[in-house]
Amino acid sequence: MTQYQTIFIAEPGKQDITIVREFDAPREKVFRAFTEVEWLVQWLLPTDMGMALDYRDNRTGGAYRYLLPGPGGSQTGIFGVIHEISSPERMIQTFEYEGLPERGHVVLETTRFEALPGNRTRVTILRLCESEAFRDGMFQAGMEPMTTALHQRLDEALL
Amino acid sequence: MTQYQTIFIAEPGKQDITIVREFDAPREKVFRAFTEVEWLVQWLLPTDMGMALDYRDNRTGGAYRYLLPGPGGSQTGIFGVIHEISSPERMIQTFEYEGLPERGHVVLETTRFEALPGNRTRVTILRLCESEAFRDGMFQAGMEPMTTALHQRLDEALL
Repeated sequence: MTQYQTIFIAEPGKQDITIVREFDAPREKVFRAFTEVEWLVQWLLPTDMGMALDYRDNRTGGAYRYLLPGPGGSQTGIFGVIHEISSPERMIQTFEYEGLPERGHVVLETTRFEALPGNRTRVTILRLCESEAFRDGMFQAGMEPMTTALHQRLDEALL
Repeated sequence: MTQYQTIFIAEPGKQDITIVREFDAPREKVFRAFTEVEWLVQWLLPTDMGMALDYRDNRTGGAYRYLLPGPGGSQTGIFGVIHEISSPERMIQTFEYEGLPERGHVVLETTRFEALPGNRTRVTILRLCESEAFRDGMFQAGMEPMTTALHQRLDEALL
């Protein structure tokens, strides 16, 4: 079992979510694990949850698409464009779940990587949503347990 | 003089700005004016304000960069990635002013185009900011008169 918790901060009346998590690995390694395909397939895109990589052009100005199970046994996607990849400190990208009833509802996600003593790293993710209701819908869709489980997978991948 | 006003909505405690403007032209034409380089140079990037096009790859998954005067007589840029170009109804892109003291402060901008009777078009722009303070800083930097003036230029370009 991991010693670290994934913390979710979502204040009433706001449109954002802050997610904070520490990892027991140096910053350069954690940054790679959050951005590079070779790492993402080990934790963020688990095949046993039906997820897969479609593509990821991992650079500032690039784009990505991941595949996952959709409504009614179908397959759907997550699509985004990459505003910034600045190793080892910052990644900024958009995020859209293609399984929603309507397209055009996009989240902006800024992930910051901070080096801590003892070769540890603190990751802080800021997710901006179009409304408080949309943000709360992400929690209702299971974001909290899903993200927590994925981070525990990453702990293992980083060993 | 134009008959239309540019309306800015920014509620206390929120992190977004909604900008609403009508134009006296059909939706397809207004969509092109907001997305295609041949149009943008006519109103959004006026050379007499020192602005210019660096590049714009006008497609879903593309990117753009505009040039403008920076602090102390220098030149700076606006950079973004294009999450969606869905003619004639929706454009979604990021926006970062490179002249800030620090990089990594990005706005997500969703622009919707609605056809109105009489070959008119309503444009609604939603700008999501990382905080209320950042949003208010955009107003303090002159966003309101600047945007209003640019939309009046667009009125003329659409004639």
